[in-house]
Amino acid sequence: MNWQNVFATRMGRMKASEIRELLKLLDQPDIISFAGGIPDPALFPVDAFQDAMRAALSPENSSAALQYSVSEGYAPLRDWIVDEMSTLGISCSRDNVLITSGSQQALDYLGKSMLSPSDTALVTWPTYMGALGAFNAYEPTYDRLIPGSNRSAADYAETAKAAGGRVKFAYASVDFANPTGETLDRSARENILDLAEELDIAVIEDSAYQSLRYDGDPIPPMLALEIERKGTIDVCRTVYCGSFSKTLAPGLRVGWVCGAQTMISQLVLMKQAADLHSATLNQMAINTVARAVFSEHTAKLRRTYAARRNIMLEALQTHMPEGVSWTKPEGGMFIWVTLSKAMNGGDLLRSALADQKVAFVPGQAFFADRSGANTLRLSFSMANDAQIREGMQRLGAAIKAAM
Amino acid sequence: MNWQNVFATRMGRMKASEIRELLKLLDQPDIISFAGGIPDPALFPVDAFQDAMRAALSPENSSAALQYSVSEGYAPLRDWIVDEMSTLGISCSRDNVLITSGSQQALDYLGKSMLSPSDTALVTWPTYMGALGAFNAYEPTYDRLIPGSNRSAADYAETAKAAGGRVKFAYASVDFANPTGETLDRSARENILDLAEELDIAVIEDSAYQSLRYDGDPIPPMLALEIERKGTIDVCRTVYCGSFSKTLAPGLRVGWVCGAQTMISQLVLMKQAADLHSATLNQMAINTVARAVFSEHTAKLRRTYAARRNIMLEALQTHMPEGVSWTKPEGGMFIWVTLSKAMNGGDLLRSALADQKVAFVPGQAFFADRSGANTLRLSFSMANDAQIREGMQRLGAAIKAAM
Repeated sequence: MNWQNVFATRMGRMKASEIRELLKLLDQPDIISFAGGIPDPALFPVDAFQDAMRAALSPENSSAALQYSVSEGYAPLRDWIVDEMSTLGISCSRDNVLITSGSQQALDYLGKSMLSPSDTALVTWPTYMGALGAFNAYEPTYDRLIPGSNRSAADYAETAKAAGGRVKFAYASVDFANPTGETLDRSARENILDLAEELDIAVIEDSAYQSLRYDGDPIPPMLALEIERKGTIDVCRTVYCGSFSKTLAPGLRVGWVCGAQTMISQLVLMKQAADLHSATLNQMAINTVARAVFSEHTAKLRRTYAARRNIMLEALQTHMPEGVSWTKPEGGMFIWVTLSKAMNGGDLLRSALADQKVAFVPGQAFFADRSGANTLRLSFSMANDAQIREGMQRLGAAIKAAM
Repeated sequence: MNWQNVFATRMGRMKASEIRELLKLLDQPDIISFAGGIPDPALFPVDAFQDAMRAALSPENSSAALQYSVSEGYAPLRDWIVDEMSTLGISCSRDNVLITSGSQQALDYLGKSMLSPSDTALVTWPTYMGALGAFNAYEPTYDRLIPGSNRSAADYAETAKAAGGRVKFAYASVDFANPTGETLDRSARENILDLAEELDIAVIEDSAYQSLRYDGDPIPPMLALEIERKGTIDVCRTVYCGSFSKTLAPGLRVGWVCGAQTMISQLVLMKQAADLHSATLNQMAINTVARAVFSEHTAKLRRTYAARRNIMLEALQTHMPEGVSWTKPEGGMFIWVTLSKAMNGGDLLRSALADQKVAFVPGQAFFADRSGANTLRLSFSMANDAQIREGMQRLGAAIKAAM
């Protein structure tokens, strides 16, 4: 059978993720890898999860925990999220929150709800690769979101029309973004909201790393800024995506979307049709663990990751040759390195693996237009201090050799 | 904000599930409901899940259980499924199996992989409502699959072309189907395979109830019949969807797809982009529980549900008036009732709830063409013997009153 005959047109845009393919090659123990960008499992709150699972599977709770449940998500967990959102300046109710299977699923559903083929999504160059992957299934065109630029809404609208559709949303990761580690300042956030108003489009705010701020002052989420402008979440165009993957554990696949009820109720219908609901047991366990340890646990994560970031920044200063620059993130898991214009991150990876046994992610895959060949992403979340120092020395040597 | 301005065209087809909306109204304790169609939580293997979660969260396993994992799914669970498939005549390897978040997600991904707008999906009248819900997101046209009919492939192809696309697949629930409880016999299965060959389309075999056969001889899955014809799964067009929701527990959201590697590897890419992977912890727990208790536990389910089916069939015989007919399922959870032509299941539900305090699902929602107004679905999975007897008496009274 020739499957091409039955595949939908979207399948032409389903490509293997370069990061994931790469990760399969990195199992050799002598390679120091900064490619991953996943939480350090040594920091998982295992005891709290053990207690939570025991409670969920107790005689009082097990019938509910193992049974089908509503597509909206487990009410007590949605209530905890409502409280958490309010600490960020987002006043909302349970009906503004949908539980998703990680924030990746939120991105998939948001793309699915808004993108018809040839519609335009605005994303930064570079942006989170997983967002491009999720949106690609709905066959959009991408245009470049440049917060703070003076490119006019009319120009965006015209470009989208020429591409055969309409601008549907702007997507932005706001705090210590994957891959750059950079944070949008308040005026950049206001600027995106202004553009969205003019274009009459939605804003997808990806806030996966929000709880991992190590220094600097917190900046209100775009959804909070929009509520400030308009008075109530239910007239806002910003949809906030949150996740427990970076704070408690990714393996349970629990995240959430928070936004206007009109949008959330449509996403609930979509989830009902697509996978019924996220695992009941997992939502109950996450609720218990969040209520028991969220503050103290995220404080511990911040201390640990901040120290690793500091060591990496120091080691970069020591080992990088002239002409290489990098971001100084106030949180998250990533530092973004820019090489001299002529260099290529993919080529560098090959030589760095072969000659120096050090790994990272070449930056090009994070660009919707496939530019950014001279960039790379480093993650400091998984390596210990000695590995970071040794790894940056190796990376410096690899770059010098390639110059 | 007017969200209609940014919604994709597919959102016009996202409607609230009538069953789910209905279920919200059935919380009153004096109503006897046969609407649900969900497993009896009193039968969940709770002890086995407690043991499995304790093992998954033990010091040796917790780092993996709580971490990100591969999109394909947990290898030991895929291996268990390979063994299970072989008992059904489906010889395959781990690479033919993708773990999904319930078989509902498999249906969503299969629709997503094959349907471009205006393509045609062949489904039976009636069919599983959740399949229509999942496929609707990809804006197909439906045409009627009638196993055993002599409608020609050319006629199907022409009708699909007139609708603006191509036939992409035939979807069929083969054993004790939701909603009818009916089973496709071997010649009906062969007939679907023949039609699929002629049309050069895929076959989606929904086998969610496969383990719940109470009597009669098992019939090989369509995938097994196709492997018999062709020698190897990797040249087959049938994709088999399985689920642990009816056998172990639905609340963990674990199901699987089994088919040709070409298709499975595309679905893996799709899953990677849509939600990364199903919950690691849940896959590990399901693997442990399946290996520990699957045979003995499903034997217990069969004994219990078979007894309930028998009582319902007997009570129907006692209480249904002349002119009402019903299916005699060899397994599963459902009996399908056909009223006289002039009657309407929706109207009957209203009067049955008000006057007799008995609930069921009107059949119309299971028909892609919205026919079947004089049908209804009963589930015997959740009620005890006394409730079934009393409930069928009430239903008989409601039908007589409406005649």
